[in-house]
Amino acid sequence: MMSAAQKSKLYEQVAERICDAITAGTLRAGDRLPSVRQLSTQERVSISTVLQAYVHLESLGLVETRPQSGHYVRRRERPRPAEPQVSRPATTANPVSVSALVARVYRAASDRRVVQLGASVPAPELLPTQRLGRELALLSREASDLAVEYDMPPGCLELRRQIARRSLEWGCALGPDDFITTCGASEAVYLSLRAVAKTGDTIAIESPAYYGTLQAIESLGLRALEIPSHPRHGMELEALEAALDKRRVAAVLSVPSFSNPLGSCMPEEHRRRLVALLTERDIPLIEDDIYGDLYFGPERPRTCKAFDKEGLVLLCGSFSKTLAPGYRVGWVAPGRYRERVELLKFAQTVATPTLPQLAIARFLQSGGYDRHLRTLRRHLSAQLERTTEAIAEHFPEGTCVTRPTGSSLLWVELPTTVDALKLHERALEAGISIAPGPIFSAQPQRYSHFIRMSCSQPWSPRIEAAVATLGSLARNLLT
Amino acid sequence: MMSAAQKSKLYEQVAERICDAITAGTLRAGDRLPSVRQLSTQERVSISTVLQAYVHLESLGLVETRPQSGHYVRRRERPRPAEPQVSRPATTANPVSVSALVARVYRAASDRRVVQLGASVPAPELLPTQRLGRELALLSREASDLAVEYDMPPGCLELRRQIARRSLEWGCALGPDDFITTCGASEAVYLSLRAVAKTGDTIAIESPAYYGTLQAIESLGLRALEIPSHPRHGMELEALEAALDKRRVAAVLSVPSFSNPLGSCMPEEHRRRLVALLTERDIPLIEDDIYGDLYFGPERPRTCKAFDKEGLVLLCGSFSKTLAPGYRVGWVAPGRYRERVELLKFAQTVATPTLPQLAIARFLQSGGYDRHLRTLRRHLSAQLERTTEAIAEHFPEGTCVTRPTGSSLLWVELPTTVDALKLHERALEAGISIAPGPIFSAQPQRYSHFIRMSCSQPWSPRIEAAVATLGSLARNLLT
Repeated sequence: MMSAAQKSKLYEQVAERICDAITAGTLRAGDRLPSVRQLSTQERVSISTVLQAYVHLESLGLVETRPQSGHYVRRRERPRPAEPQVSRPATTANPVSVSALVARVYRAASDRRVVQLGASVPAPELLPTQRLGRELALLSREASDLAVEYDMPPGCLELRRQIARRSLEWGCALGPDDFITTCGASEAVYLSLRAVAKTGDTIAIESPAYYGTLQAIESLGLRALEIPSHPRHGMELEALEAALDKRRVAAVLSVPSFSNPLGSCMPEEHRRRLVALLTERDIPLIEDDIYGDLYFGPERPRTCKAFDKEGLVLLCGSFSKTLAPGYRVGWVAPGRYRERVELLKFAQTVATPTLPQLAIARFLQSGGYDRHLRTLRRHLSAQLERTTEAIAEHFPEGTCVTRPTGSSLLWVELPTTVDALKLHERALEAGISIAPGPIFSAQPQRYSHFIRMSCSQPWSPRIEAAVATLGSLARNLLT
Repeated sequence: MMSAAQKSKLYEQVAERICDAITAGTLRAGDRLPSVRQLSTQERVSISTVLQAYVHLESLGLVETRPQSGHYVRRRERPRPAEPQVSRPATTANPVSVSALVARVYRAASDRRVVQLGASVPAPELLPTQRLGRELALLSREASDLAVEYDMPPGCLELRRQIARRSLEWGCALGPDDFITTCGASEAVYLSLRAVAKTGDTIAIESPAYYGTLQAIESLGLRALEIPSHPRHGMELEALEAALDKRRVAAVLSVPSFSNPLGSCMPEEHRRRLVALLTERDIPLIEDDIYGDLYFGPERPRTCKAFDKEGLVLLCGSFSKTLAPGYRVGWVAPGRYRERVELLKFAQTVATPTLPQLAIARFLQSGGYDRHLRTLRRHLSAQLERTTEAIAEHFPEGTCVTRPTGSSLLWVELPTTVDALKLHERALEAGISIAPGPIFSAQPQRYSHFIRMSCSQPWSPRIEAAVATLGSLARNLLT
């Protein structure tokens, strides 16, 4: 399997061009690929490089070898499952209590004996760990004094410069001073919630919503108002508007790009409208953009922040899904709430750890992040595809699955009689971790026949077997 | 100046023995030290080693050289200033608002042109940065995969083992599972507050109290009830008891060992009584032990937690004052609130950064922490002493100064007509950072003629000049 940590190799470049042709539709399922000899001449590389490229494409599940015949673009064996419907959560604002269940899921994430289809954590082999390690080794020699010192809010200037540079691609053109670095996006979202809301306030969120966000809302004594959400387009703006007309909402918290668990991506026109309708009402938007770099399409989705003229959008992000979860380096661009967020940050953790910030700043400086992202996206896209196929093959009839255009999560709707909590229990007993639907809502009975499957590990026979096991466990729960 | 990062050298060992003799009173101010030749024979070291030891002791301000005569234990030039009185805060519980002033203080801390007598941050040259750098370099080679992974709460097991091992010295004998690692002690205290109190609740604290704690209380919408505190013995238990009889208090938050800014150390008998009286009333105690390892006496003070039989004490600590502020590695032993603190931790920052935890765990494993602490304490003690002497020489008559038996902070009471906020302003203009008294209280007019001076930098002519400048600025403010 290709290591994203290494400098791009020749065979990877060859594989990448074939990938692109498949994505673009130039090559389609069942098409025969050029012979090894042809490709070798065409690409001016050795036979063995072409063979490596094909092995790599096979491991990604994009290509299959037919003995005595050659290489073909892999055909999906079954029709793609249908998508789930738009969610229809209750229209009441609810205090949240999902903590105990969530604890079981994240604890399972640290158990190496368990097949990880639960937590949304990228596998280390997909991350540039060696290059990060090298930056660290350099820092440990050159900057061990600096590393022990506090890096007071707003945090590491060089890192903020690098993030600001990247913000051009988000349609924002923010400056280093617009950012405050944080311990991951979770702290960014948490500080944002605290900056704009006080105990008892209501926060409008997508439904289903990330359990970490629900926990943050819970632990701050806020209420979650779940807004119906479309499996492809995210939060439904008409429903949001109707809700805002009915009650006071302190803030809207949304994950417009590849929402967790839906995988939905809000169309740009919706983003513009969302910002406009909140600006009209002077309601802040907490935009969690943690998955924004993991798009499979030709372009990165622009953030809602790109349409924000009033400083009402608090944009949160991190490197946890793309570089190094364990480094806990994130950021917030809090717009007009900057001063308040900075003071809260100081009161909460004083400073973000210095060293991981320096390491990431150097990594970004030295280039290669975009190339790493391209590779990572290719892997994630292939992993989602393979998992979807395996679900189509093994899960009970009537199972619906989302079709995300980015990130690595599938939201799976099982036949209504399958109890997701029971499935979660039995899966854990079988050494497989999934995230049961009910943890994605503040409403206790909601999503009781849904599960979220994370496709963040490289596809392997072990994972294939786990999906098959899940399917048969689900079948056994049909009544 | 001796680097704490290096393995103990011969001259340091010689210096240490002389230090001990001075501390024990065997050698007193004005006593002549053995001649270089005598000491060389006695200690079986070279002449140059003895000379190095004497230079080192001079730099610590413990020894002076008289030309043609030899080395003497330095005599203090002026009598020690008097101590401040027991604090007498108002008996009301107050919402807190010190944030803006605090921001000025901590921002000044990052400015290298400013003489740092403000923030309580140990100078890197007093920390084992090289050894930590080596651990990091090793980790960057051996554990770069591990480092990028989430380290889910309760956090790094090896680190918790090492902390648990140290807890014997605190009189606790805690196990690894009693701890949750955090982003510094500030997150530990913050999570503890959230675990035991809800908006509007009252927290009893020392007066004066650390501004970070006041900010945490402020940002959680809690109220601070300031309890009179003795400059040497800390929180006055009679006053606390009277306050508890009068109103509902959700928790007591105390820094029994070397309270910030008072430097007070609660006698063991008081600690026992404090825990007993809170246990009787079922009120949790948040014990901030961040300075516990920085005692100058023969023994580490036992924590209040040592007397806790009911799990009512949430013990917080960190390595920020002893090893690496910028690593942001702390812990909490939350007693009966363990489950709740762990869930809050997950919701707030998901995980503590992996890498700094691993580096500190390895540092502790490999030994030498206690030796480093001994050296650090000797430096801090000498720095406090020198600063006190300089205050006696340069500050207006009537100035009172605390006499801490640990840590590195002086609480300075100026004549009542000197406005600490004005002094703070003028000092900053002169390139000197101090912490003005009012930020240490939720009561706006309180401590208006007090300042806190941090003696965490090695003594130097630059610092001596700064203390002299402060003195004359203070004189100019006398009315």
